[in-house]
Amino acid sequence: MSSHRIAPAAGRGALAVIFTSLRTAGDGGYAQTAEEMVRLAGEQDGFLGVESARDPAGLGITVSYWRDEAAIKAWKAQADHLAAQAAGKARWYRAYRVRICRVEREYGFEG
Amino acid sequence: MSSHRIAPAAGRGALAVIFTSLRTAGDGGYAQTAEEMVRLAGEQDGFLGVESARDPAGLGITVSYWRDEAAIKAWKAQADHLAAQAAGKARWYRAYRVRICRVEREYGFEG
Repeated sequence: MSSHRIAPAAGRGALAVIFTSLRTAGDGGYAQTAEEMVRLAGEQDGFLGVESARDPAGLGITVSYWRDEAAIKAWKAQADHLAAQAAGKARWYRAYRVRICRVEREYGFEG
Repeated sequence: MSSHRIAPAAGRGALAVIFTSLRTAGDGGYAQTAEEMVRLAGEQDGFLGVESARDPAGLGITVSYWRDEAAIKAWKAQADHLAAQAAGKARWYRAYRVRICRVEREYGFEG
């Protein structure tokens, strides 16, 4: 699973979707669905990468990178993803915020 | 500490700095410095919010939100932050990537 990796360079002009969430208690199928969504997102046209972290206190941040708005819209409307979004609101998330941002520059370090 | 909260709405045109990192083993003063940096960032002019998660496997994502490039540059050059950046490269991080992005739209959910 790609949740323990830094996503590769997205490139100037790419879109980043920052999904920040607070989980409810318990798993209730969450972990399996989250893993499946990462796998499915990776098959979408225009997908550039994903990185994800969740701390033990329940706050998680997932950033996915996309070529353009059309790619984001197609993923948001993907059938399995729609079902996961509904389950997320009904069971898994106390709150979340989504921010769609355009990459202006990026740099990195490897020790 | 604000690491267990979702940052408030940043607003269209704000800048998001996505800092994704892989830690080395052990603490070595990291946790205390990280907390202090969150506190100091919050005192900077143009700071809009921060959210942060690190999973037990060592991957962390911190997103800070800023009014403009000038605010980001001033924070990057802040003296205590410069020292922390140097210690980060020398001791705390195996790798990191920084992406500066402009917020185009955002939305949220509260259950």
